[in-house]
Amino acid sequence: MSKRYYQDLVEGEDLDCRPVVMTRDAIIQFAKEFDPQPFHTDEHSAALSIFGGLIASSLHTLSACTRVVVEAQGDVAILSGVGMDEVKMFNPVRPGDVLVVEAWWTDLKRSRRQPDRGFAAIRCRVVNQKGEPVIEYGYRYLIACRDSV
Amino acid sequence: MSKRYYQDLVEGEDLDCRPVVMTRDAIIQFAKEFDPQPFHTDEHSAALSIFGGLIASSLHTLSACTRVVVEAQGDVAILSGVGMDEVKMFNPVRPGDVLVVEAWWTDLKRSRRQPDRGFAAIRCRVVNQKGEPVIEYGYRYLIACRDSV
Repeated sequence: MSKRYYQDLVEGEDLDCRPVVMTRDAIIQFAKEFDPQPFHTDEHSAALSIFGGLIASSLHTLSACTRVVVEAQGDVAILSGVGMDEVKMFNPVRPGDVLVVEAWWTDLKRSRRQPDRGFAAIRCRVVNQKGEPVIEYGYRYLIACRDSV
Repeated sequence: MSKRYYQDLVEGEDLDCRPVVMTRDAIIQFAKEFDPQPFHTDEHSAALSIFGGLIASSLHTLSACTRVVVEAQGDVAILSGVGMDEVKMFNPVRPGDVLVVEAWWTDLKRSRRQPDRGFAAIRCRVVNQKGEPVIEYGYRYLIACRDSV
């Protein structure tokens, strides 16, 4: 795929993300390293929690979904990430869940101060294999314009 | 440390977080798994980027900081995470950076519909070893009340 610049992005354009499989091992491994709440790391504690079983750290869900979003971007001339929108959490992610990431480009806005670049966001809505909402969030990027490079 | 419930939390109370060391290897490993942008994974591409060198995925920074925040919470009766606030990004994180996480409890609010629990947030401001701002963000939790358990 050829390099895409700010001008090549289209408001509302969907990204075609592959599914995200969340395994028990990966859930426990991520949580032990980064988010060691008992309901993320320990089957017994998780069984006694309001979830009734192990659930993924939302940072793990975010990270695993980011992988497929970045792959789906293709070769976009991203200069930098500039922020992430509020993360809304709905249903928990459990071992074996397969997540579908609906992602689309939005909020395209050329920089007025630096016209060789523009801002763009990717909004994401993640659902599980039952179609239940899992998380919603967004990335904000700074992207090079075609004639600036 | 004894278990702390919603009523034990104090608005504005600081969490005592240990420093976060961001190594080159950890930066590359996290990014290869979760956020494979060239300026996170590849020294050569990163050298040609606007950063002039390798920088950490902000999701890695968030995850690594979450580890020390969770440790600093002690044994709080967290029922669930319910969301994360917008992540504001300032300066990039580079290999060898040592991050200081300023974190404090805020937005304590007992649930009106379910008085056996309350909402609480932790706001975080992360700076590097030069005192430069890195990221600001927040966690939102649901926490059990003492007499509910």
